[in-house]
Amino acid sequence: MISLTLVQARDLAENIMRSHGFSEGHVRTVANAVVTAEGDACASHGLWRLLGCIHSLKAGKVVADAVPEVVDWAAAVVKVNGHGGFAGLAFEAGMPLLVNKARSQGIAILAINHCVHFSALWAEIEPLTAQGFVALAFTPSHAWVAPAGGNKPLFGTNPIAFGWPREGQNPFIFDFATSAVARGEIELHRRAGKEIPLGWGLDADGQPTTDAASALNGAMLTFGGHKGSALAAMVELLAGPLIGDMTSKESQAFDAGTKSSPYGGELVIAIDPQRLLGVSAGEHLLRAEALFDGIVEQGARLPSQRRFDARVLSKHNGVQIPEALHADLMALL
Amino acid sequence: MISLTLVQARDLAENIMRSHGFSEGHVRTVANAVVTAEGDACASHGLWRLLGCIHSLKAGKVVADAVPEVVDWAAAVVKVNGHGGFAGLAFEAGMPLLVNKARSQGIAILAINHCVHFSALWAEIEPLTAQGFVALAFTPSHAWVAPAGGNKPLFGTNPIAFGWPREGQNPFIFDFATSAVARGEIELHRRAGKEIPLGWGLDADGQPTTDAASALNGAMLTFGGHKGSALAAMVELLAGPLIGDMTSKESQAFDAGTKSSPYGGELVIAIDPQRLLGVSAGEHLLRAEALFDGIVEQGARLPSQRRFDARVLSKHNGVQIPEALHADLMALL
Repeated sequence: MISLTLVQARDLAENIMRSHGFSEGHVRTVANAVVTAEGDACASHGLWRLLGCIHSLKAGKVVADAVPEVVDWAAAVVKVNGHGGFAGLAFEAGMPLLVNKARSQGIAILAINHCVHFSALWAEIEPLTAQGFVALAFTPSHAWVAPAGGNKPLFGTNPIAFGWPREGQNPFIFDFATSAVARGEIELHRRAGKEIPLGWGLDADGQPTTDAASALNGAMLTFGGHKGSALAAMVELLAGPLIGDMTSKESQAFDAGTKSSPYGGELVIAIDPQRLLGVSAGEHLLRAEALFDGIVEQGARLPSQRRFDARVLSKHNGVQIPEALHADLMALL
Repeated sequence: MISLTLVQARDLAENIMRSHGFSEGHVRTVANAVVTAEGDACASHGLWRLLGCIHSLKAGKVVADAVPEVVDWAAAVVKVNGHGGFAGLAFEAGMPLLVNKARSQGIAILAINHCVHFSALWAEIEPLTAQGFVALAFTPSHAWVAPAGGNKPLFGTNPIAFGWPREGQNPFIFDFATSAVARGEIELHRRAGKEIPLGWGLDADGQPTTDAASALNGAMLTFGGHKGSALAAMVELLAGPLIGDMTSKESQAFDAGTKSSPYGGELVIAIDPQRLLGVSAGEHLLRAEALFDGIVEQGARLPSQRRFDARVLSKHNGVQIPEALHADLMALL
């Protein structure tokens, strides 16, 4: 493993992005996303994603100098046209207006269109909880996942993220794929020559399989059977047609076999608990704290606890990445 | 089995409610909810729920003549104080303002407080999809379900419902508990002396059990492991503290062992696709239809299809209920 301080990791990420002609806004937001994820011990969304960012650029599937365009669409709706750039910069551009709208109306939508996704959704949730908002985010991906009762890829891995602000504490945040596992998890099994458990995927004939390669060529399955499948469909609808953007199937067609990052829309909803609760906000936010106490007191974990614990450690110890990944990244400079 | 036409079923339900002193608004909305569910072949939310309604009344846990109070709280927020009555009438009172707000702002919240829940959430989703809105609904219940990694009841069965309007077709609607199964399902197994599968519940010592009675005295489990557990926590937060109402644990304390229907809040979110999409609404709603086609073409079902099929049949054939239930209902007149 190669050890890097967080500053070194950020410099490396920024230099890679910059050397490929990305505008400073994309350099900064992409580097921040992958270094934060690496420091949070989420290697799947960490520095190795830079390989995908550069691959998507070379495939012509991301616009290096895209400037997001913010539209004040309705009293409770902000739209941002990403113009083919990465989602992070588009989110950053739209967030101030989203925050203003949620504060005054109680709830507001940020619809990001025509952007490329590679990051975890909590990257968009944390800035909102940090300002005291409850937040939800959804995005489709590529058609890899079969609906429950079916056997052909239709849905993306379609993550759902939710955040709840906590005074003086890390926020309550979850962010998970509606597929049984992340696609990268199946890829790791294939590379390691390991079988996957039943329930993760179907082969190209629609039969349950324990062979990772067969599942990647067939269809992944949703988590939680028909319930997970219903949620995956909801994500397609909310972050696709509802905001005038592509479904996972359309995004995959647009990809044209280049295996670039998914292109399309993202829906973010922000709710202001202070606006909803008024003078009694303090009292009711304590009820939420009692709920969290009820979870941890019985030995269960809060969803992002592992991530926040890792963040504290990486601030002091930096991060460690495999030598092969480090070499691949250095080759991009 | 006893056969009833839908008119007879409705008369029976209305007469039971009326004879116990419920106001005409509650008589109408409760009868409508239970008869629609019975006709949709959802017996678990059908006529037998009237027994629970009357039980809750006798236990002093529902206010028979409660008049919901609508408050125009913010540009995108309607609040309704149910004043201890059933949720259906409170929803009906708040819906017109919710619809107006969603139409003008794009998205709006209806926060129902201090109401008693016994109905399925789709009863609140369908009126919104019928008017062209995308809708979400959440409500806690009583603390019966352990968080993933824990072993003590904390969450309610905490349903999530979602609806998408479809032109000239039944809407896309799902409505499911975030517990592995409905509590009633475990009760049915206990009555039938049948074992429950592993994964439904834990006994009072926190150990996995196949004994229905032990699971009812212990803790139910969420669907989909830690993902379902995260969603259950989200429902507690959104439809509890966020709107100034009780968590499932607090609702159970309020119940004081009477086994009445859960009392607390409900959160409904309405989004207007026409407002979000403007002139291109037609084009993008067709993308949603392509998604639905992609589901049914591979032999998978849309979530509420079984319910809508049953509705067509019951319009002609009426409903059939067990003799014992019919006798119990007649005894309430």
